[in-house]
Amino acid sequence: MDLLSIDSLTDGQIATILDRGEHWFGENRAGRTSDVLEGRIVFNVFYENSTRTAMSFATATHRLGASAISLSVEHSSIKKGETLEDTARTLNAMRPDALVIRHRENGAPAVVAHIMDTPVINAGDGTNEHPTQALLDAAAIRHHFEQLEGLTVAICGDIKHSRVARSNARLLPRLGAQVRLAGPPELLPEGTPALSVDQAIDGADVVMMLRVQRERLQEDFGDAPGEFIQRYGLTAERLARAAPTAVVMHPGPINRGVEIDPIVADDPQRSLITLQVEMGVAVRMACLELLVGSSD
Amino acid sequence: MDLLSIDSLTDGQIATILDRGEHWFGENRAGRTSDVLEGRIVFNVFYENSTRTAMSFATATHRLGASAISLSVEHSSIKKGETLEDTARTLNAMRPDALVIRHRENGAPAVVAHIMDTPVINAGDGTNEHPTQALLDAAAIRHHFEQLEGLTVAICGDIKHSRVARSNARLLPRLGAQVRLAGPPELLPEGTPALSVDQAIDGADVVMMLRVQRERLQEDFGDAPGEFIQRYGLTAERLARAAPTAVVMHPGPINRGVEIDPIVADDPQRSLITLQVEMGVAVRMACLELLVGSSD
Amino acid sequence: MDLLSIDSLTDGQIATILDRGEHWFGENRAGRTSDVLEGRIVFNVFYENSTRTAMSFATATHRLGASAISLSVEHSSIKKGETLEDTARTLNAMRPDALVIRHRENGAPAVVAHIMDTPVINAGDGTNEHPTQALLDAAAIRHHFEQLEGLTVAICGDIKHSRVARSNARLLPRLGAQVRLAGPPELLPEGTPALSVDQAIDGADVVMMLRVQRERLQEDFGDAPGEFIQRYGLTAERLARAAPTAVVMHPGPINRGVEIDPIVADDPQRSLITLQVEMGVAVRMACLELLVGSSD
Repeated sequence: MDLLSIDSLTDGQIATILDRGEHWFGENRAGRTSDVLEGRIVFNVFYENSTRTAMSFATATHRLGASAISLSVEHSSIKKGETLEDTARTLNAMRPDALVIRHRENGAPAVVAHIMDTPVINAGDGTNEHPTQALLDAAAIRHHFEQLEGLTVAICGDIKHSRVARSNARLLPRLGAQVRLAGPPELLPEGTPALSVDQAIDGADVVMMLRVQRERLQEDFGDAPGEFIQRYGLTAERLARAAPTAVVMHPGPINRGVEIDPIVADDPQRSLITLQVEMGVAVRMACLELLVGSSD
Repeated sequence: MDLLSIDSLTDGQIATILDRGEHWFGENRAGRTSDVLEGRIVFNVFYENSTRTAMSFATATHRLGASAISLSVEHSSIKKGETLEDTARTLNAMRPDALVIRHRENGAPAVVAHIMDTPVINAGDGTNEHPTQALLDAAAIRHHFEQLEGLTVAICGDIKHSRVARSNARLLPRLGAQVRLAGPPELLPEGTPALSVDQAIDGADVVMMLRVQRERLQEDFGDAPGEFIQRYGLTAERLARAAPTAVVMHPGPINRGVEIDPIVADDPQRSLITLQVEMGVAVRMACLELLVGSSD
Repeated sequence: MDLLSIDSLTDGQIATILDRGEHWFGENRAGRTSDVLEGRIVFNVFYENSTRTAMSFATATHRLGASAISLSVEHSSIKKGETLEDTARTLNAMRPDALVIRHRENGAPAVVAHIMDTPVINAGDGTNEHPTQALLDAAAIRHHFEQLEGLTVAICGDIKHSRVARSNARLLPRLGAQVRLAGPPELLPEGTPALSVDQAIDGADVVMMLRVQRERLQEDFGDAPGEFIQRYGLTAERLARAAPTAVVMHPGPINRGVEIDPIVADDPQRSLITLQVEMGVAVRMACLELLVGSSD
């Protein structure tokens, strides 16, 4: 099996990933190591740079006793004009036990998975999906609130271009949470109810802020510095509209003072941002375990 | 011992590599892992980018239970003006169990091997040699035909600049195969019999196409798009001149529609291209096993 | 505990690192492998390129049975505007067993260590410190002379910008050696006694030459090629002023004919340059063993 999108997962698989993620979270905190994937090889193929996702998958791989072999875009054959399909055929013939791929183009992991015999994990493709991010977000929310059922999650920012928002909007409702999407009108996909950020946050249990691309701010909006956060960002004042026990999330890396006020991002009572990263390793261990185990 | 060129190998060593390559090929297909080089460290030093060769050596290293430490040109001290000899002295002092090197300059691996106490494997140097590619090609041919003795292998393309052609032209005749070289007259080394591609392919058992550098096509030949494949490339029509059981090979990455027609490259009955990649990991395992084992 | 600077180490810790470094040096020469850090993960985060230091730490990590996960500047989130503190929070949440960091800015490893729960090793920060280099230098000197007490060490070159000089000037006197600093007057820090290179070398037991940045030579000094070595470099003639048993050291990579004459650098009776590299792996094994062991 592959992990290409949220919709490709059954409810049972999602439950297994969340439960095993919580298990590995505890094992990692206890400093225990595992050898369940000893001798296995995971290819990490990143066509886009990413500190956190690449390091997270490599760490997850090693924590399970497997070896990670990384290929970054600089070393790739793209420059030599090889098609993605031919690269997939080549990597497949080397018989890794799993392949993790990040790519700028929507659907690239699906193209690769169609060719490969080995499980493929989508580590983010264009503006399409980032399923392991949504899974770790769900696991972090559940870890904090003990359940997802009945929670309201406000996702705010550049919804239109966000694979994180897209995957979460598909996953969280399946787990019983209500998702509200909000952001600058130009950055909402067609058909999204026109909620203001204030309205989305109102009474929410979770406020998930998305990363804004700074270049886009000036070019597309003509925003003056500091204008975005006042209009659409998460300030302490705006957070006060949420539920009293509300928490703050962000997939990182954060732009301090752009989409989120540092006071909010750094509040240990409110921010789940580092919990997300920690849970990220654990959930990716669960994904690798499920996929590589099932391919035996 | 080092593995710098085909001529540096005895017939016995070649036989061992091919036999053990076939052995590891079977082990890999069976999903079995090995620990024959457990605790060993292999340095992969690539002064030229290469998806397939770098990944192939790293995979081979891990499949034997050893660790691969990779150094790519971007991280190298070349930019700081260090000589290749001094880099070799430095790497040698770290006492890896083997060093794999790819370099733009002919003879660079020999310079490094002269200094190092540890076995050195040439993973391709300039236009000189690429011995593990020739060994994996021989192993793939033998796997398919069960033997090399008596086969005719046509190697077509930019022979003059091809380290793959050079190593194969030295290896295959030692195993009983006849090699014919053909390509654009400007891209044949002096002293090569002036065969046309059609003549070389005529009745051949194996047609090995080389990668053409696209830039060279326009600059040196003034070729219009599509012109090269008609004059020198492998089309289905041209392949019909070969033996009825003939197979197609290519070291990759392939330029679809330039040196090879996709219909030929993707024909599962004819193409050994992915078999070459798969055998590449196995043959490199055999090379590492032979060299690191012999240095104990 | 962290290893950020020489002053952060107690005399007992320094003695342990030198003793265990000597132990691992012997183990590495004997080809024995270890599993004392089996299952552990070391993050190597290099914001500056470095062949020898990055490879040395990765080799040390693997020789202890742990896994190294490397992040080079090209893959970092710096380009995305993430602060160093946020990167540290992210890496910390992934719970590596140690973090090795090289950074262009003085004090960056201390900033990271302040945030991280895991041991942090400074692998060189700006013009501040490079403590593991000084420790390996001390271990190499002791290996050669059997003790450091009573030795005179001349450190020559661009003292002002050298983290190697700074760390050695702090470490070696604590081990009973006398340190003399010399170089072009413009490249000496304020308050350094104005010794000429000839005076510093006079009767010295160890002559440690620093790397000169070639660009600086022409821009800041207007030096003609070959001028620097005559005025400040280590020639055989100048080395004759040192003690009859004097040895030559250099942190590498060396500029042949700039700060050091090849005849001196390559003299097997005099040069400890490759011993430094070999001891580097062993001393870094000792540092990892001490820090990761102490964090359990």
